[in-house]
Amino acid sequence: MTLGLVAPVRDGMSTGGRPPSQFALNPTGRVVIAADLGASHSTIAITDLAGSILRESREQLDIALGPEHVLSHMRDSAARLLELAGRDLADVIAVGIGLPGPVEFTTGRPSNPPIMPGWNGFDVPEWVHHHLHVPVHVENDVNIMAIGERALFFPEVDDVIFVKVATGIGAGIISGGRLQRGAQGTAGDIGHVRVERGAGTACPCGNMGCLEAIASGPAIAASLRGLGLDATSGSDVLDLVRQGNTLAIQAVRQAGRDIGEVLTTCISFINPSVIVIGGSMARAGEHLLAGVREVVYTRSTPLATEHLSIVQSQAGSNAAVIGAATLSIQHALSPEGIDSMIAA
Amino acid sequence: MTLGLVAPVRDGMSTGGRPPSQFALNPTGRVVIAADLGASHSTIAITDLAGSILRESREQLDIALGPEHVLSHMRDSAARLLELAGRDLADVIAVGIGLPGPVEFTTGRPSNPPIMPGWNGFDVPEWVHHHLHVPVHVENDVNIMAIGERALFFPEVDDVIFVKVATGIGAGIISGGRLQRGAQGTAGDIGHVRVERGAGTACPCGNMGCLEAIASGPAIAASLRGLGLDATSGSDVLDLVRQGNTLAIQAVRQAGRDIGEVLTTCISFINPSVIVIGGSMARAGEHLLAGVREVVYTRSTPLATEHLSIVQSQAGSNAAVIGAATLSIQHALSPEGIDSMIAA
Repeated sequence: MTLGLVAPVRDGMSTGGRPPSQFALNPTGRVVIAADLGASHSTIAITDLAGSILRESREQLDIALGPEHVLSHMRDSAARLLELAGRDLADVIAVGIGLPGPVEFTTGRPSNPPIMPGWNGFDVPEWVHHHLHVPVHVENDVNIMAIGERALFFPEVDDVIFVKVATGIGAGIISGGRLQRGAQGTAGDIGHVRVERGAGTACPCGNMGCLEAIASGPAIAASLRGLGLDATSGSDVLDLVRQGNTLAIQAVRQAGRDIGEVLTTCISFINPSVIVIGGSMARAGEHLLAGVREVVYTRSTPLATEHLSIVQSQAGSNAAVIGAATLSIQHALSPEGIDSMIAA
Repeated sequence: MTLGLVAPVRDGMSTGGRPPSQFALNPTGRVVIAADLGASHSTIAITDLAGSILRESREQLDIALGPEHVLSHMRDSAARLLELAGRDLADVIAVGIGLPGPVEFTTGRPSNPPIMPGWNGFDVPEWVHHHLHVPVHVENDVNIMAIGERALFFPEVDDVIFVKVATGIGAGIISGGRLQRGAQGTAGDIGHVRVERGAGTACPCGNMGCLEAIASGPAIAASLRGLGLDATSGSDVLDLVRQGNTLAIQAVRQAGRDIGEVLTTCISFINPSVIVIGGSMARAGEHLLAGVREVVYTRSTPLATEHLSIVQSQAGSNAAVIGAATLSIQHALSPEGIDSMIAA
């Protein structure tokens, strides 16, 4: 099996320190399949080993159609994209997949994802490996967005929090240069933290006053309907903001403040240097960020925010697919990944 | 220079994977000096390379006497303890020091520690290395307590938060098996997070409503004075609790609830499997823990707390010194540490 690696540059003997670098990489020699499978969309890309997108497709696709349907679609899309890129399956070194819910990270199986009926415990890596015969890495969408945003725009920054504000609210945490998944893979689940303004608002999770119940796209839309505006989704809220509707702008800014309330604690706790606000609601731009910044800078100690940047996602809708590619490339090119390819 | 290491067990050539293990360790061959320098105490220990304490001394010592005085005391105590243990300075492989304030972790220098006048920016590693001629590792006290507690009681657990409740309140975070220091080394600084019950209470930091301003030992004592009780310190509060004073017990339990309010967000954010409550106020035992547990379990989603234990520190006053020893041993026995010793 060829590896997309050229001959050894030097043959280093270990001195007990880090493994010597033994290969120069030819980044165009092999490719990966990266998939960002959202609640209602599917983005599939073929990238080279530097993470550059060679071909990409984006379609509406309901994750609730179930794993067999969605993964078959992914496989077929990937095959078409490979053909368009003049490659074939034998060039694929790995597959990286992002899913819109918690993933048990040792097995790559989704665990209790509320918006993914039929996926709970489904062996995604096994299915994909069975059909594509390469290593598969599955991760929740917020984590791959964090990895993608960092890979593209903050490669030298070791402490980055990516906050996705969309139908739900969640965070991907990179601390000390590593993705932090937590003990059960639920790290970053800030959508169900209770906030002051939420008192009295019921959340579908069963608790009262969750951040997500007042600051997600659907929650903002609901609050605007209460004011007599025509808004059924986060996308409607964004339209109203773009039209300059004052009530919509105020509601988005208030959502930013609520998110900022939770982030203030997270910032004191983990001391990041960059907070990236992404997800569809981040397209409301400065209005959302202004609310976040207002609360974070008012409530934090100077020490916690002295070197902190709070910025809008620049990777936008590509953050996830780039992150899925980056993740699978990192695994494939790890010493263990290369060993297993050599052995194959 | 002998290393406390015996001859190579096998001479492994790197395959590009992890460095092969090349040495068997003789844990009693060398020793480390571990120092837990608190606000008002100094604990010095000599341990072997397995982290077992060979000799230890504990004294009252005011950190505000300044670095030259405190570090000279540490050096002299260490020399006495080495003699008692039948060792000498040539046996010392490294020094680990915990300080009661933030430490700039790339340089090991204290940075703006409010209770450590004269220490700001002092080059602790340089001073110690100049006098003892071995590698020195400096870390804030909560971080070494987290490392020590984990080393002794949770060696297999990768996600542990150690919360110190004493004159101040802070956390040491081990996530993904690694100590998380954050971008500027201030991770775990939860004492200045704002809590609901704190509204209207000024904190010495300049903000209002900080956790530390209502839930630290001195803050609980102040609230009890307001109720006509004779309490000037956290230690007085503990005495009242031991005597079964109902007001003191209620105040400690309420402090636990306030701490639990902040921890609830931290738990959703980083998904630990163990929370250890330590520091002097943890000696109030179940009363403090009951308050923490009450709020955490009421406010969290079942997913966040399903596999979570909230326990009292078992290492107690030894957590810090064991952590300082563990930290310095880890560094000394890292591939880089062994390389540098071989080169010396």
